[in-house]
Amino acid sequence: MTLPGLMQPAQLTIGSIFDRMRTIYPEGEVVSPEGRITYGAIADRILRLCSVLTERFGIHPGDRVATFGFNSSRHFELYYAVPLVGAVLHTVNVRLFPEQIEYVMNHAEDRVVFFDGDLAPNIEEIAPRLKTVDAFVGMGAATASGLSPLFDHDELIAATQPAPSLPNVPENAACGLCYTSGTTGMPKGVLSSHRGMWLHSLAQCTADCLGLREADRVFPIVPMFHAFAWGLPYSAPFTGAELIFHGSDTTSPNVGRLLQDERVTVTAAVPTIWKELLPHLQSGEFDISSVRGIYIGGSAVPQPLIEAYHALGSKIVQLWGMTETGPLACVSYPRRPHTSLDEKGLFELRAKTGTIMPGVELRIAAPDGKIMPWDGKSVGEIEVRGPWIAGAYYNDDSSDEKFHDGWLRTGDMAYVEPEAVFKIVDRAKDLVKSGGEWISSVELEGALLGHPKIRDAAVVGIKSAKWDERPVAVIVPRGEAPTLESIREFLAPNFAKWWLPDDVVVVDEIPKTSVGKLDKKVLRAKLGDLELP
Amino acid sequence: MTLPGLMQPAQLTIGSIFDRMRTIYPEGEVVSPEGRITYGAIADRILRLCSVLTERFGIHPGDRVATFGFNSSRHFELYYAVPLVGAVLHTVNVRLFPEQIEYVMNHAEDRVVFFDGDLAPNIEEIAPRLKTVDAFVGMGAATASGLSPLFDHDELIAATQPAPSLPNVPENAACGLCYTSGTTGMPKGVLSSHRGMWLHSLAQCTADCLGLREADRVFPIVPMFHAFAWGLPYSAPFTGAELIFHGSDTTSPNVGRLLQDERVTVTAAVPTIWKELLPHLQSGEFDISSVRGIYIGGSAVPQPLIEAYHALGSKIVQLWGMTETGPLACVSYPRRPHTSLDEKGLFELRAKTGTIMPGVELRIAAPDGKIMPWDGKSVGEIEVRGPWIAGAYYNDDSSDEKFHDGWLRTGDMAYVEPEAVFKIVDRAKDLVKSGGEWISSVELEGALLGHPKIRDAAVVGIKSAKWDERPVAVIVPRGEAPTLESIREFLAPNFAKWWLPDDVVVVDEIPKTSVGKLDKKVLRAKLGDLELP
Repeated sequence: MTLPGLMQPAQLTIGSIFDRMRTIYPEGEVVSPEGRITYGAIADRILRLCSVLTERFGIHPGDRVATFGFNSSRHFELYYAVPLVGAVLHTVNVRLFPEQIEYVMNHAEDRVVFFDGDLAPNIEEIAPRLKTVDAFVGMGAATASGLSPLFDHDELIAATQPAPSLPNVPENAACGLCYTSGTTGMPKGVLSSHRGMWLHSLAQCTADCLGLREADRVFPIVPMFHAFAWGLPYSAPFTGAELIFHGSDTTSPNVGRLLQDERVTVTAAVPTIWKELLPHLQSGEFDISSVRGIYIGGSAVPQPLIEAYHALGSKIVQLWGMTETGPLACVSYPRRPHTSLDEKGLFELRAKTGTIMPGVELRIAAPDGKIMPWDGKSVGEIEVRGPWIAGAYYNDDSSDEKFHDGWLRTGDMAYVEPEAVFKIVDRAKDLVKSGGEWISSVELEGALLGHPKIRDAAVVGIKSAKWDERPVAVIVPRGEAPTLESIREFLAPNFAKWWLPDDVVVVDEIPKTSVGKLDKKVLRAKLGDLELP
Repeated sequence: MTLPGLMQPAQLTIGSIFDRMRTIYPEGEVVSPEGRITYGAIADRILRLCSVLTERFGIHPGDRVATFGFNSSRHFELYYAVPLVGAVLHTVNVRLFPEQIEYVMNHAEDRVVFFDGDLAPNIEEIAPRLKTVDAFVGMGAATASGLSPLFDHDELIAATQPAPSLPNVPENAACGLCYTSGTTGMPKGVLSSHRGMWLHSLAQCTADCLGLREADRVFPIVPMFHAFAWGLPYSAPFTGAELIFHGSDTTSPNVGRLLQDERVTVTAAVPTIWKELLPHLQSGEFDISSVRGIYIGGSAVPQPLIEAYHALGSKIVQLWGMTETGPLACVSYPRRPHTSLDEKGLFELRAKTGTIMPGVELRIAAPDGKIMPWDGKSVGEIEVRGPWIAGAYYNDDSSDEKFHDGWLRTGDMAYVEPEAVFKIVDRAKDLVKSGGEWISSVELEGALLGHPKIRDAAVVGIKSAKWDERPVAVIVPRGEAPTLESIREFLAPNFAKWWLPDDVVVVDEIPKTSVGKLDKKVLRAKLGDLELP
């Protein structure tokens, strides 16, 4: 018979993170377009928001409260106030199409929507079709008034007293809901738990992960509506690190200015941000020497980008995860077996996806379910499990095949090296299947971006009578478009001959999804019924 | 109604740490008197030990298995094998008196005892009175044979196959049992849970705590029979750090040699070890420049020790905890509000107890239960709570007053500064109550140790007709004993006049408990009915 341990039944909740932020780090600073505020002062506002939610809006534990906004201290307040009263923070992606926004709000059955004042028109557009929302709250001056009843975030806070007490929330309760813009069908909701977010936050603070510490100043450029800004609004205050929010302006002048002026030490965003910022740094426009880690996720990080930042004295660290993985599951860093690598070897290593975080397990599975060895060659779909990995989608039975046997099927194809470093070769559906072998569209794309005459590129598999599929390069040229022959010559030194694209299609723009990833679904539709011999 | 999150129900267990050690870090090294072995190879031995426990000895989930030994890789194997089969690792303190050892083994109802071969006589002495033990296993050649049935650890492993599968252990199951040598009555058992130990391990890896990482080589000098060697045998493999075990030899030549030759980066022990090693380092006998952190707990760290090691280029970091707190609850490090401190200020800060770890909460309570403010003055008893803090003693109702309202009363008196740094002034029962005010015996003892003619010192409160209690210094002189007057003069610059001892008693030796702390219970008995005006 199992003997139970006699440890205290303390719960792992957002409330526990909040208490630490408030009692241990009250002097910590949050910087945002609204101004500067300490964790102590913002905690008071958060407790007032708790009263607003329960008393003014009648929010009960389990109810969903939506946010629709960029990175700001008001948004941060909701990251805490909503879970503190036992409700669920639904961060709506502002870049979804109107019909998707309408769908996710109705699917989540949101009771109240907090939106950035600037984004009022977007909410007005869909408001008539929202079935469960009974209040709208503008964060900052709302420029439109077709919403009713409409409140102002700051006025509500000013008119309310801090909640004198908070409910006891069990750690397995839901704290957040974030929809993933799936590549097929409508977005699907991932319902996080307090426990998962607490553990994810602590894991981010471990030295081999992000190693967040009190002395850090953390600048999540990744949006707060995207996978909870990779958890940073929870992990930073947990360890006392300060937070910098940029609002909606992710242009290089604003990003560079904040990195420099706010003496940021840790920052996180998708590769695009860093590609755009690079020339501004190379020209000496900004001094970002305070930054100890540039954490990049969302899509594979090209090795030349890592090398270019290294030359400027900045360290890029690749992260891997997805909304379904809570969101971070992997960090790329040199392991003990890599101590003898030279600089080139280290760059190659850092361009790989990385090693799974403590608390998460990873395996790769062949299509028939067979678990593949970690031999650096065998490719399979990544499956992960752990306490901050989704076990189901919210209110959606159509995707049961994503979850099986206690594991999440991620849709990413990878091999794992004997040193436990894995490398994603492609999304399962984007691999080009040529003559019974696999060709990685991601690797070809990364290489194509190094071509001096190519500004942007995608590789898709096109139906081939002979080979089943063959790779075709779709490019946005820089000036005069390069020929297929010159592209093949450029790639030849680094790829097997049968990997080289059979055709090149020149376009003005590569279609991207609402979160900035290559939208191959749209691209394939554009290419129509192109067929190769 | 609470909405449950949809994260996977993954359990936080020692098995999860073991899996990570085995699959991610198989090349990591464990160094011990038995030799060198990798995590991969030791994992195989651990799985064989699992078979030994269940098949050979019929150990079931919840059963207690005792260890009686120093720090070694065999002991490490049991740290994993016992919890992996759902049983409870009872680490018996080899320094207890025989009647205490007999008491704790009978109280725990241990089924099997694994003991260091060298310690066979100690076990033989009590074996006839052990009521529940049905097997003895010698780790290393046992030098006596009055034990039956007697097995050999390595032979058992060699004769068994690795367990093909392990039971699913729930995270709230007990994984370990460690008795604290209380100052009154028989030792009391703290029954840890898998969940508590897992969370404690992850918290130790956070950057502001021990910041353990894969590149570390961790040398826990703190014994594995004492508060689970402060959790390091679990936290180090969790993040891939390597482990160094020293056996039973804690003399400076052995400690210095291992620190130097094994390129240790992190080490942990009580202050005595570091006091003894200091002259060996000052003379240049050992080079310990690889060490990035000397973690000290068990009793307050004297500031001169911190300064002396700093002068050698080594950083001492103070930890606080007790068996009941799982064991670590606090780390002393400079916080954001301390960035303007000069070197002297930093030394003073590092000599304070520190800041509570993420996951644990702390408050200080007056005798009437009133919660005291964090004003740097108000003294109260430290109370803590959190998922790795004991909620009760094992099978012992006599100590219910230690646990109340979900908090553990620690028996340590402290004040908390506004910067959330707390400072222990004394054990509640050792404070000298003089004329309605408190005098800290610990602070006086620390100062007395700085007197050139004092080798060891204790301060106890002696009954006073006028003042209720007055402090008396009990000293072991270095050469000729100093007079009371010279002692008072020495202390006068740093203490209020009414803090200065009223008397001095010269002794040959200060009695210590089995874990090396001042034994004031014995000391008071020795002083008999000494009374002051």
